[in-house]
Amino acid sequence: MTISMYAITVPVLTRYLSNLEAILVKAEANAAERKIKPEVLAAARLAPDMHPLTFQVQSATDRVKFLLARLTGQTAPSWEDNETTLEHLRGRIQKALQYVGTFSEADLAGKEDGAVTLRDKQVPALDHALYNALPQIFFHITTAYAILRHNGVPVGKGDFTGA
Amino acid sequence: MTISMYAITVPVLTRYLSNLEAILVKAEANAAERKIKPEVLAAARLAPDMHPLTFQVQSATDRVKFLLARLTGQTAPSWEDNETTLEHLRGRIQKALQYVGTFSEADLAGKEDGAVTLRDKQVPALDHALYNALPQIFFHITTAYAILRHNGVPVGKGDFTGA
Repeated sequence: MTISMYAITVPVLTRYLSNLEAILVKAEANAAERKIKPEVLAAARLAPDMHPLTFQVQSATDRVKFLLARLTGQTAPSWEDNETTLEHLRGRIQKALQYVGTFSEADLAGKEDGAVTLRDKQVPALDHALYNALPQIFFHITTAYAILRHNGVPVGKGDFTGA
Repeated sequence: MTISMYAITVPVLTRYLSNLEAILVKAEANAAERKIKPEVLAAARLAPDMHPLTFQVQSATDRVKFLLARLTGQTAPSWEDNETTLEHLRGRIQKALQYVGTFSEADLAGKEDGAVTLRDKQVPALDHALYNALPQIFFHITTAYAILRHNGVPVGKGDFTGA
């Protein structure tokens, strides 16, 4: 086995986006049970000056698409930030999973030696993936989990890891 | 540039543990300013049945030490979970940073082809690092950040990424 740009991105992103989708399924069921309107948890946040759940999911999925698009020189698909319910947010994750699924090992072969352009600056692709994009994706997925957990949705760390 | 087990662990862990330490420095200054006792934020949590900040930092640092110890066949150092203040937690992170700093590229060379033992089960080292250990480390660092942010500590995502 060797470590490739594909190995550190596509399977990891697929797994953790799928886990986030499953967490939202649990949140929807729990909201229905507690008679919480579908917009309430989507708009929940951990602090008044912190972004809500919608933003966390939008940001996680945007960072996924931009990472893969930048690595391969594609133009990332455009997704409108119009989600207001947990169901919409699941749809957003499904779009991201579908996009991730279009990348093969061949598409990413050798990309660890390339560079990506961030605001007119060239950055080594590997540094961008390891130090910036992947940590930020985990940041937003964890924050989404934390917002739901803080609001009483019965999820545990096994839901985050998918273990 | 090539991707190695060293590249996906030591520099990433060093950076994100250092960022967490800097976040705790800001939290200490903010607690002093607001006359919050040093134990209060250390014991803060996002939900009554969720672990407090102390646990998040202990868990992040434990996962760091176990990852590197398992990859290299070392016995991880033993750290007592006795931290009760932000200052103690900074000390815990410093111990982890020091331990991470003992690993050279040579120590981790070829470890991507090996296996690690988890509860008597052999798991490919790369799968363990990418799918489990690193995501969980980011999970606990992000949760520590979220607990402090939720409690009014003025940190932003730039503090998380160290950008």
